[in-house]
Formats: sequence, C-alpha cells, structure tokens
Amino acid sequence: MNPASDTRERILHTARELFHARSYADVGIKEICDSAQVQKGSFYHFFPSKRELAMAVIDDMAEDWAHGFIAEAFDRDLPPLERLDYMIDAAYYWQKAAKDLEGRMPGCLFGNLALEISTRDEVLRAKLNAVFAKASSQFEETLDEAIEQGLIAPLDCAATAQAMLAYLEGMILLAKTRNDPEVIRELGPAIKTLRIGGAAEN
Amino acid sequence: MNPASDTRERILHTARELFHARSYADVGIKEICDSAQVQKGSFYHFFPSKRELAMAVIDDMAEDWAHGFIAEAFDRDLPPLERLDYMIDAAYYWQKAAKDLEGRMPGCLFGNLALEISTRDEVLRAKLNAVFAKASSQFEETLDEAIEQGLIAPLDCAATAQAMLAYLEGMILLAKTRNDPEVIRELGPAIKTLRIGGAAEN
Repeated sequence: MNPASDTRERILHTARELFHARSYADVGIKEICDSAQVQKGSFYHFFPSKRELAMAVIDDMAEDWAHGFIAEAFDRDLPPLERLDYMIDAAYYWQKAAKDLEGRMPGCLFGNLALEISTRDEVLRAKLNAVFAKASSQFEETLDEAIEQGLIAPLDCAATAQAMLAYLEGMILLAKTRNDPEVIRELGPAIKTLRIGGAAEN
Repeated sequence: MNPASDTRERILHTARELFHARSYADVGIKEICDSAQVQKGSFYHFFPSKRELAMAVIDDMAEDWAHGFIAEAFDRDLPPLERLDYMIDAAYYWQKAAKDLEGRMPGCLFGNLALEISTRDEVLRAKLNAVFAKASSQFEETLDEAIEQGLIAPLDCAATAQAMLAYLEGMILLAKTRNDPEVIRELGPAIKTLRIGGAAEN
C-alpha cells in the first residue's frame, strides 16, 4: 500500500469506527484527523467534505459486508432457509463481539445513519436506500429459491423481503436500546414467520 | 396557562419539533432558544442541560402518544386484531401528514433518538427503553386477548410483542430511508404474521 492510499484508508477506517460507535453529527473532522493522525490539509485532499467522507464510509462498509457476512449468509450452497438463520446468527455475534469489546452495542451503521440523516441529506439518504435495496434483493432471491424448492408456500417475495429487512433493522434497534445483543437471538428466528401475499394466515 | 409554564412549553415543543425533524446532536440550545423566542437564561431555568430537555421531550411525546393514538389503537373496545390494523394505519397517516407538510418523512422520534444516543447516554437510553417496554406491553395485552378469544393460536405473547414492536420500528426506518410513508402501508399488515413460540410454522 502506498503512503497516500494508506492515509486515505486510515481516515476512512477511523471515521467508520467513530460514526458507528457514536453518530455522524457527534464526530467532527478535527477529531477524525486527530485519531487518524493526519493533517487537516491531507483530509481535504482525500475528502472534500464530511459528506464525501460519509459516502466513502458507507461504500467501504457495504463492500466489506458484500464480501464478508452477506456473502457467507447468502451463499447459494446453503439451503435457502438456513441462510436466514446464518444471517441472524452473524448479526448477533457481530453485535455481541462489539459490545464485549466496547461495553455498548453499536447497532447497524446503515440503520443508524439512515435515521440520523435521512431528513437532512438527500444524497446520503439515496445512498443508504441503495444499500437497503441491495440487502432486500438478497432476501428476495432466498425466498424465490425457497418457494422453487417447495420449502415455503408461495408469497410475494419482493414485499416479504422488504418486511424481513425491516424486521432485521428493527430488532437491532430494540437490541441497541436495551444494549443487549441477546434480543437478536431471542427475536431473530421469527423473521421466517413474516409473509406478505400468498395464502392468508392468522 | 401562566407565563412561566408557557415559556417552558414553548421550549419543549420547539425542541421536540426540531429533534424530530433533524436530530438531537444537530440542534443546539441556541437554535432552540431563538426558535422559541426565549432567552438562554430562561432556558437554563427550566432545563439545566440539553439532556434534561431531551428527557422532558421524551416524556412529553410519550404522554401525547399514551393519550392519543396509543389510547385509540389499543382501545379495549376494539377487537384485538383490529387494534394492530389501527396502529399501522395511525403510523401511516401520521408519517404521511408530516411528509406532506415538510417534504420529509421524520420517522419515529423514539427510534431516531434510540439509534442516535444509545451508545452515548445511559440515562436517555434507559428512558427510551422504558418507552419501548411500555409500547411492547400494549402489544402483549392485545395478543393475550386475541388468544383468549380464540382469534389466534397460542404463542409466546411477551416475545411476539417485542417482535411486533421491532417490526414497527424497522418498517418506519425503511420508510424514512425511502422517504415514502407508503412502505408502512405496504408492509404493515404483515405484523400479524409474526409469531414466536406456540405451534411451529414453516
């Protein structure tokens, strides 16, 4: 890694950690520079604004997810419904590890940023929305396959996928408010009971 | 209303609107004082700190909810499952009205604050947690009654109530990220498909 890209990476990872542990508004450029041990001039060379930095943080995290636990959870070699179990487990262990380390459950960076800035920044909102749309498409493919394989009754895969993503984010929100990752383990399996369309339930 | 309580109310409602439309960190005491047209000294007379103000905002909103749409939705005279429909409808129309007025869907103030400050303020986190616990107990009572009346099969009411609250918050989160209250209308009815415990599904 050359020194320039090393500096950029250091800023990026410092910002990502600080935004995740606290919030976007609560962390200033000065603090990021101090923590990353870079000069302000150097910061602005890589990121013309805090918003540009946030865009890069979202991309960086989405990239890590896509190649990390999303790739593992939604592995096509796993039976479809096991992918959902894997994803809940991964969310739980991720939050638990963070809490064990820091004493606080940080929640989902995307969900945190979405609630904090959606009313204030159209560009960041659209970017977060695209991350959620991609996550939702993973659920949708999983549901499509589960129906094809006769594992679940036909339902509206696109809508149910959205419902599952909403539930995942909501569970993490409640767990963060209780500062207790066990909430994810307790509520998680119910993600498979959600359904929109198809034969009526209840 | 006497002038003192009028000043306090003005600060409180201004802060509530600004926190809800933007975020806790993004709104400073000076801006609140300017918008509410009160002096800083007067502010500190009523609220020793921004945190004290946030506590009062949470109480104020929780109180309004308890006597407003929560009381209406969870009215014991309504059939239990209709209460859930009512609550989803109320969430939808509330967010739609806010968006029609401001152009942006503000989401749930409690959910917004929970994700923004839970890692940073134990006192506010505990307060928000208490609000969610109360909301969850409304779902739980509803489920208890629905089972008693033979409307749904037995399930773990306490856990399913938490799941429903998580789903509600998660739906609002996704809707806010899309800036589209219709998400609540589309995904809302599926809240009744969530179940934890009881006879196995899927």
